[in-house]
Amino acid sequence: MSARIAAIVGGGVIGGGWAARFLLNGWDVRIFDPDPQAERKIGEVLANARRSLPGLYDVALPAEGKLEFCATIAETVAGADWIQESVPERLDIKHRAIREIQASARADAILGSSTSGYKPSELAEGAANPAQIMVAHPFNPVYLLPVIELVPHPGTDPVLVERAQALLRSVGLKPLRVRKEIDAHIADRFLEAVWREALWLVKDDIATTEEIDDAIRFGFGIRWAQMGLFETYRVAGGEAGMAHFIAQFGPCLQWPWTKLTDVPELTDELVQKISSQSDAQSGMHGIRDLERIRDDNLVGIMRALKRRDWGAGRTALEHDALLLSGRAAPDWSQPVLTIERVIPRDWTDYNGHMNETHYLELFSRASDRIMELVGCDAAYIASGGSYFTVETHLRHLDEAHAGAKVRVTTQIVEGAGKRLHIYSRLFHDDGRLLATGEQMLIHVSLETRRAAPPGGVVAEGLAVAMAGQSALDRPDGLRLGRS
Amino acid sequence: MSARIAAIVGGGVIGGGWAARFLLNGWDVRIFDPDPQAERKIGEVLANARRSLPGLYDVALPAEGKLEFCATIAETVAGADWIQESVPERLDIKHRAIREIQASARADAILGSSTSGYKPSELAEGAANPAQIMVAHPFNPVYLLPVIELVPHPGTDPVLVERAQALLRSVGLKPLRVRKEIDAHIADRFLEAVWREALWLVKDDIATTEEIDDAIRFGFGIRWAQMGLFETYRVAGGEAGMAHFIAQFGPCLQWPWTKLTDVPELTDELVQKISSQSDAQSGMHGIRDLERIRDDNLVGIMRALKRRDWGAGRTALEHDALLLSGRAAPDWSQPVLTIERVIPRDWTDYNGHMNETHYLELFSRASDRIMELVGCDAAYIASGGSYFTVETHLRHLDEAHAGAKVRVTTQIVEGAGKRLHIYSRLFHDDGRLLATGEQMLIHVSLETRRAAPPGGVVAEGLAVAMAGQSALDRPDGLRLGRS
Repeated sequence: MSARIAAIVGGGVIGGGWAARFLLNGWDVRIFDPDPQAERKIGEVLANARRSLPGLYDVALPAEGKLEFCATIAETVAGADWIQESVPERLDIKHRAIREIQASARADAILGSSTSGYKPSELAEGAANPAQIMVAHPFNPVYLLPVIELVPHPGTDPVLVERAQALLRSVGLKPLRVRKEIDAHIADRFLEAVWREALWLVKDDIATTEEIDDAIRFGFGIRWAQMGLFETYRVAGGEAGMAHFIAQFGPCLQWPWTKLTDVPELTDELVQKISSQSDAQSGMHGIRDLERIRDDNLVGIMRALKRRDWGAGRTALEHDALLLSGRAAPDWSQPVLTIERVIPRDWTDYNGHMNETHYLELFSRASDRIMELVGCDAAYIASGGSYFTVETHLRHLDEAHAGAKVRVTTQIVEGAGKRLHIYSRLFHDDGRLLATGEQMLIHVSLETRRAAPPGGVVAEGLAVAMAGQSALDRPDGLRLGRS
Repeated sequence: MSARIAAIVGGGVIGGGWAARFLLNGWDVRIFDPDPQAERKIGEVLANARRSLPGLYDVALPAEGKLEFCATIAETVAGADWIQESVPERLDIKHRAIREIQASARADAILGSSTSGYKPSELAEGAANPAQIMVAHPFNPVYLLPVIELVPHPGTDPVLVERAQALLRSVGLKPLRVRKEIDAHIADRFLEAVWREALWLVKDDIATTEEIDDAIRFGFGIRWAQMGLFETYRVAGGEAGMAHFIAQFGPCLQWPWTKLTDVPELTDELVQKISSQSDAQSGMHGIRDLERIRDDNLVGIMRALKRRDWGAGRTALEHDALLLSGRAAPDWSQPVLTIERVIPRDWTDYNGHMNETHYLELFSRASDRIMELVGCDAAYIASGGSYFTVETHLRHLDEAHAGAKVRVTTQIVEGAGKRLHIYSRLFHDDGRLLATGEQMLIHVSLETRRAAPPGGVVAEGLAVAMAGQSALDRPDGLRLGRS
């Protein structure tokens, strides 16, 4: 089968994002954009997409399609399966683009518009082929965020709407079929409401842009990455349910704010409507289940942000550092306590216990801790020396489950010259030995990426450690190194 | 040092969440709540907190403090360092609670209110000790979400505000000091605006509660978990910057929506204010850097949601399945291609290459794939049989970096009876051998958690595989099993 063809009319950040999403999923992509900078600008969007989108998936994407910049709309859209219009947000410009597109497009191509404000019926006014026109409104960055608001007008061919949904899904997107057209569709109405409120807060010196952003991203923003407004409030309503929540909070959380706005009257009929829609949406989960789903999602998101040292993740990292800050210097005459922690819920696999990957994560962090304790800390690593693991041997002796408190004690078997031979034991809080992890590390120069003797501070740190550690019994079952 | 004492006046979901946050960080907690169900309800919040909060951290939390339910406010607050008022949202009830609290509280205790609507000066009207009163407004679930809107009134003692911030940080929270009091503080004003808009959309049949939630959680909700409104728009504005963005979008994304609302006039002064605040907030990062920070965060969040099979994570899992769906049956006369993927950016460690943990993640998934191919798939596992890894040997031969395409080929060394001995090779797309992973797995009964022979379907699948695999050369350097 030859590749499908996407025609992108209007480049920029949005058109470029569409181009990337199609191209990286194996479609051929043709672009029309009169901006002389278009090729550079779209090249930058594509570079961002190439560095981030493939890593989202646990399977390689297909080979990229063919990318072509065209001189005319006619050339761009001829034979295309999907035509995406992302020209500037003015109705006369959009009408002109649509006229040109339809002069050369296949009659059964999807003609999607990226408009954030116009209704599809406005776009279709006076069009040669209104049946193929629909809004397909994406969110920036288009190559990463999945949702597309798909809004047909009454004259859009339902067969094409169906096909559009299937094609969007085939490139990893999540079409959200909007049932009635309205200015700005759905999500942008919310963004608009928040934007308006935020402008007032800045103008009135209640908050700076940074404080507003923090109020969002350290709080409800994290919630909204996984559940929306209604499901979140359903959980907040607790056992009493959604109708109770609405009764409690009413049309506004507080009356004074309604002064300047028109608020729908909360008739019994509206309460009933929300309540039954919420049942259809979330009723398959009990409230206790929803709470746990929410909590596991929130912890997962914040743990992901810890890896990025960003936002709520940074707050958690700072707390880790505070919790560690009181630790005494190690007693090198014993195996060293390197890890003491609780197993997060998302470390569980299909066997209902901690996945093996996280056993190595624990042992790897134990080795990191030993490195730190002998002087191979962040500052030392920044100076160009470090250790690379060359070999690892793991034995699984017992199971561990989410929520269990575990600890790792670590012994340095050999620490001299370039070699660092480490043996760690993972214990459950109840005393059971769960696993052992043996690792051979080699000191390297981070510049040459080759073995090199450690610097003075680490050599001395190791000597201090080994003065105690070398008196310890050799662990049973060593498999690596000279043993 | 004896533990600090938190007094929780008013239980429920919010008071219970505060109790959990303090208790799990080693504080003693006393609770007053006249609801006869209070102990059960708070017990449920505590159970949720205990199952989720510790896993957020990579260090164990301190031992829990002592939890006590008290019969009077006097008993609850006496000697407490932090008193948190979470009684129902009515000013007369709050005033009565504050009166009772202050009759027995230390004068230098923090008296925080969880109010989502009232200003601290309203709470302090007629109080015996206004200086200790401030709003400390949390977000549900209080035991997980970090932000606390901390709002003093003009008469609050600044020393206590400082201390409040330090104490909140010491239990892992993120105090957001609000500089001017206003109804509903900051975040709830946004939630209110969205709630209002959402009610209209449901009432007018534009969208159901589920569609509204999807518009949020598959799009801007994911963005807001890591950057707020202004930083997101700064990035969207691109090279032209924040002032350009505002000029383009104006006070509203579209004019028609302002009909019912009062919108601030976008004077040069206001544009300048936003622009310079945004510079102070984000100016240390270039736009290209911000784009990449954003993208890496978004991928990290969506990958976290993949592990939960939820929301945007489920969308990505479905795309994985689609990408895999065309695969041909394996040719057992060769090592089997088990993994082909790109290395995500957050697999990189301080050495600037893929962390060892993810080498095992790849090999572990390769073993999962082999299990699946011989018939030990999700349905088989649901029927009670599976394989557990008992031993692993990894060799690191070369480095791998984020963005690299890699593949794993896997060979079954032995697959008979209970034993499954696997050997995988990890290759860079350019052909370099990066690592080898050898694993010994044992078939188990998931009920007894002990070794057991595999069921017929797997025994047969293995026989088919081994008919081809046993003719392959034994890999070099096997360390496990009978070899």
